[in-house]
Amino acid sequence: MRDVAIVATGMTPFGELWHSSLRDLFVEAAREVLDAVDHPLLDSIYVGNMSGGQFVGQEHLGPLMADHLGVAGVPATRVESACASGGAALRAGFFEVASGASDLVLVAGVEKMNDGADVTGVLATAADQEAEVYHGITFPGLYAMIARAHMEKHGTTEGDLATISVKNHRHGALNPKAQFRQEVSLEQVMTSSMVSEPLRLLHCSPVSDGAAAVLLCPLDRAREFTDKPVKIRGGGFATAPMALADRVDPSALDAVSLAAARAYRASGLGPSDIHVAEVHDCFAIAELCVLEALCFAQPGSAAELTRAGETTLGGRLPVNTSGGLKAKGHPVGATGVAQVIEIVEQLRGEAGARQVANAVIGLTQNMGGSGASSVVHIFERV
Amino acid sequence: MRDVAIVATGMTPFGELWHSSLRDLFVEAAREVLDAVDHPLLDSIYVGNMSGGQFVGQEHLGPLMADHLGVAGVPATRVESACASGGAALRAGFFEVASGASDLVLVAGVEKMNDGADVTGVLATAADQEAEVYHGITFPGLYAMIARAHMEKHGTTEGDLATISVKNHRHGALNPKAQFRQEVSLEQVMTSSMVSEPLRLLHCSPVSDGAAAVLLCPLDRAREFTDKPVKIRGGGFATAPMALADRVDPSALDAVSLAAARAYRASGLGPSDIHVAEVHDCFAIAELCVLEALCFAQPGSAAELTRAGETTLGGRLPVNTSGGLKAKGHPVGATGVAQVIEIVEQLRGEAGARQVANAVIGLTQNMGGSGASSVVHIFERV
Repeated sequence: MRDVAIVATGMTPFGELWHSSLRDLFVEAAREVLDAVDHPLLDSIYVGNMSGGQFVGQEHLGPLMADHLGVAGVPATRVESACASGGAALRAGFFEVASGASDLVLVAGVEKMNDGADVTGVLATAADQEAEVYHGITFPGLYAMIARAHMEKHGTTEGDLATISVKNHRHGALNPKAQFRQEVSLEQVMTSSMVSEPLRLLHCSPVSDGAAAVLLCPLDRAREFTDKPVKIRGGGFATAPMALADRVDPSALDAVSLAAARAYRASGLGPSDIHVAEVHDCFAIAELCVLEALCFAQPGSAAELTRAGETTLGGRLPVNTSGGLKAKGHPVGATGVAQVIEIVEQLRGEAGARQVANAVIGLTQNMGGSGASSVVHIFERV
Repeated sequence: MRDVAIVATGMTPFGELWHSSLRDLFVEAAREVLDAVDHPLLDSIYVGNMSGGQFVGQEHLGPLMADHLGVAGVPATRVESACASGGAALRAGFFEVASGASDLVLVAGVEKMNDGADVTGVLATAADQEAEVYHGITFPGLYAMIARAHMEKHGTTEGDLATISVKNHRHGALNPKAQFRQEVSLEQVMTSSMVSEPLRLLHCSPVSDGAAAVLLCPLDRAREFTDKPVKIRGGGFATAPMALADRVDPSALDAVSLAAARAYRASGLGPSDIHVAEVHDCFAIAELCVLEALCFAQPGSAAELTRAGETTLGGRLPVNTSGGLKAKGHPVGATGVAQVIEIVEQLRGEAGARQVANAVIGLTQNMGGSGASSVVHIFERV
């Protein structure tokens, strides 16, 4: 396999972008990438998107986006793994470059959620229709059950969950592209509306529009395009049973553990080598479970790590410096690629007020559904 | 890049399969593959599917299918390119094996269309929502316009279109897995209900349920699994403007021409080297346009080729020996993989009454929407 690098990034702000359509969002992010590298001929495009069909009545996003970017002809494939669609798209683009078949591959994630669709209903199609959704549950309920299981097993408290939200809003306040750029207090989180007990409004990521894009090329060509390439050091992808009821321990995210183990093996690195991480905090409980599954903390001890400030900017391992899904926003198909962009900016030393000092190795963890799919990538400044 | 082979296949019958759900169909086809090779550990799965979300309320098909196949944990990615989803999934799986990252990759296509959804409306989400669908057109109308353009430019007649349907039903009658196993006469086609002038009911592929799966591995490991591996000699993928109105000549399918040129170059072969082909006859006019775009016939001369019997079983280049989308059926996400299975069976000499004598090289052409995306693969008996 050839080594693969990221040489350019582009991203829309995340938020309620009522003036931009699905295709507008893609083109805005993709054009920023192409402008940064003087518009080379692309060999291929991957579009991460969860549900253009249900959100805005548009499937077949590969050719649509190639067309509207002005490069009709270029192969363009949509990849979907629910909220892990962006990470799965990166993985597919990585293989195309690593194989030697292509040199310049654009990987973009995009979602347009604010356009009139029943968002909670559409998102629920990422859970098991027969075992779960048919009976009336949606994602806040599924993650609430994960939270209850974690509380039961590890003594996790509502205050622990709130700490995650406070931290990620603190980071998001520093991110010009974040949907929410204000800090929230522990009290604000703890008294916000109950959504699905024990999850309150400020434990939940928002409904967002947005797009994010990166350009991949073989590492040995990277310096044609940038002085600061970031190498994809390794990746891992894994699945787990779709339905929570089929999991041995709903508080443990097995797909994340397995994807992480694969990414650590592929990169030759371990959790202690990571300087900065973006993880999938679709609900506050998810960040706790994920930190444990990534082996950043022992099972049941991620809350302690968070309370001690170790995952805050300035801590030992800053997590979700972008604001995470909670504050940056969560246009589901775009999230996996936006996580990568935050890490690329950190490793390039371009994260401004959010900069982690001396970050050389970074990790992204993207997740679909209630954790039935997860993609982990590890990146290195070279 | 490593050479990649297909070592096993599995496929449900195509048709109105009211007793099988989306997941049932996938598992039936995938299990047939695994049974044929004594259930090795899979490294990865790709699921080609156009719109589980809109047809049956189920996205996130990667982990769902891995789970229901009994292999939760294995990476599993859904790939979508409308009716070319199967071909696009094969391409993604090919890169993963060719790169050296994985050895055993299952590629499956699946669609459940008969489950109560507004099928024509769902399919229309593969066309350009803003430029086409919003104004009321659906695919029979789009292909009718392609047919009119072809008639205007090349003098193609309604009889020419009917000849395609007659041929493909003749082939389908020999295929135990085809949705329609009866021949139709020229008169039956020419007097069937008008759907969208000049396209009649018997010019249109049906609404179908079904799944098809193949197992990929590095060519140098292929004989661990089969005595009759089929090598993926080369592939090509291309896009074209989504909206018909943006194409210079709507009767010419540029994405097909470009995908074919890429596949011919990748394989080192040309149109005259092909012994048998499966092409995307979603409407009868499509087969004529595609034969020309693949350079099997000069522009405007595919009808003559068909009338002369050259593309019928026993002719110089049999096309759609499976019955094609018209007679075999067209569960949209499964079609691209089912085409590959027909070619694999032909190259292995296992096509029974449909066998093309001495077939060594075969081609598949899969297409999305009104031709905005197309995938071409060339296969070789080794």
